[in-house]
Amino acid sequence: MHDDKTPITVAFQGEHGAYSEAAGLSHFGKAVRTIPCETFDAVFAAVETSASDYGLVPIENSLAGSIHRNYDLLLRHQLSIIGETYLRVQHCLIGFPGTSKEQIREVISHPQALAQCEGYLKSLGASSRAVYDTAGAVRILLEQGDPAVAAIASRQAAKVYNMEILEEEIEDDPSNTTRFLVIARTTVDPSDEAKTSIVFTLHNIPGALFRAMSVFALRDIDLTKIESRPVAGKPWEYLFYIDFAGSTSQQTVKRALENLAEYAEMLRVLGSYPRAKEYNNHQKS
Amino acid sequence: MHDDKTPITVAFQGEHGAYSEAAGLSHFGKAVRTIPCETFDAVFAAVETSASDYGLVPIENSLAGSIHRNYDLLLRHQLSIIGETYLRVQHCLIGFPGTSKEQIREVISHPQALAQCEGYLKSLGASSRAVYDTAGAVRILLEQGDPAVAAIASRQAAKVYNMEILEEEIEDDPSNTTRFLVIARTTVDPSDEAKTSIVFTLHNIPGALFRAMSVFALRDIDLTKIESRPVAGKPWEYLFYIDFAGSTSQQTVKRALENLAEYAEMLRVLGSYPRAKEYNNHQKS
Repeated sequence: MHDDKTPITVAFQGEHGAYSEAAGLSHFGKAVRTIPCETFDAVFAAVETSASDYGLVPIENSLAGSIHRNYDLLLRHQLSIIGETYLRVQHCLIGFPGTSKEQIREVISHPQALAQCEGYLKSLGASSRAVYDTAGAVRILLEQGDPAVAAIASRQAAKVYNMEILEEEIEDDPSNTTRFLVIARTTVDPSDEAKTSIVFTLHNIPGALFRAMSVFALRDIDLTKIESRPVAGKPWEYLFYIDFAGSTSQQTVKRALENLAEYAEMLRVLGSYPRAKEYNNHQKS
Repeated sequence: MHDDKTPITVAFQGEHGAYSEAAGLSHFGKAVRTIPCETFDAVFAAVETSASDYGLVPIENSLAGSIHRNYDLLLRHQLSIIGETYLRVQHCLIGFPGTSKEQIREVISHPQALAQCEGYLKSLGASSRAVYDTAGAVRILLEQGDPAVAAIASRQAAKVYNMEILEEEIEDDPSNTTRFLVIARTTVDPSDEAKTSIVFTLHNIPGALFRAMSVFALRDIDLTKIESRPVAGKPWEYLFYIDFAGSTSQQTVKRALENLAEYAEMLRVLGSYPRAKEYNNHQKS
């Protein structure tokens, strides 16, 4: 689909310099063209309509848990997960070149980033203002031109706008890590160590869940994630998210999924993909 | 411990009018005395040091997933869960009496609340500013006295400060529901329909997890929540959160937990408590 001159494209939520973009560049390498999108929905739509080859969305954070919104969008769209990547979220205080953090009277960023640096901001004694994007905060900073204002964003965002990092790793919890998924219109057949993500529903628990899990346990298939989530408005009905080791091209996995389909009310294979380095094997940008 | 004249006390994170306080009042009734705390840690400390009889903390949200921080605090403190309660998060735009939403040029609130009303704020065309608390935003509003500024907070917060609700249910996703836990120094023996919450670790999966689940399945104990979480810095080690129907005073539950202790590396019973109305059976305040 791509000759050597056309770079592959990766859609992400946010502006240039966003953490999702950093995760995309770390996963695909610097040669890709990244496409900023305003919402997660827009990322899925960009991939679905071929406006982008791939999409990159956060799926779980070590502090905040699973991002149910993106599981919902995975169910709503006919796209596949073809990869995963982990990013340690390292927030920077970014200001105009030549300024120091003592000068800062106001800090702007995305609400989540402000919340994750709450302790730091208190000690800084600066007020905070919410904007719709971390990288966008750096752009606003540049546009407004006030040296007493700083932004919280990624190291990449400072580079994009030629601004200065006044302080690094200002997040209150240094274990803050986000797992991202790569989505595409086609599936892949991972030859290396693979992982598969599925979503299914069961009517009742535990008989049904125990049987559902037995299809993996009895075939020695390792689970790497299991999570239940109540289905909105349907008491006693649950969605289950399961990730397990192996690919749908393997015979044992095929049989396990056929077996699961007998118990599950709904079963959707979201994709098989190469397994990324373990959670908390952090990469420096 | 309490005579009729001394009301029981309930610590919560935030200022008077916070959603946690609303959940506490809905759970205990209006006669309790609520104690605002700056952080979740402070809520646990208040209960531990007997500064408060009970604490009330959010544990999972229908959009954002489990609040791992409070699971961590449950493990760190020797307190018990003695109750649960669900609250539908209904955000209000709150301004000075006599103002209308067309006049509003800036909206202040907690970063999470601003994020949950992102769509609404865009349509309103107002800028937003982050402060450390939803109810605190209403207090700041009152102190600053600018009628072009509004806050996003609960209906209760408007009441506390005698301010006006300019618009209700402004959250982008109306299914936004938070489950809260009631924590105490002592345990309870729920006579009604009970639920028990446990946390445990297992070295490997799925053999171990399957065996762990079999202790419930083989005794017909219903699971209402299961979630795995990677242990920070320990690849292949997982924390499991499980909620199940029944109380530790029941013989089958006792045996199941004894059985689980044989497989689990660490096992902590967080408490047995009366089961609240199902997720998404929303209450109006």
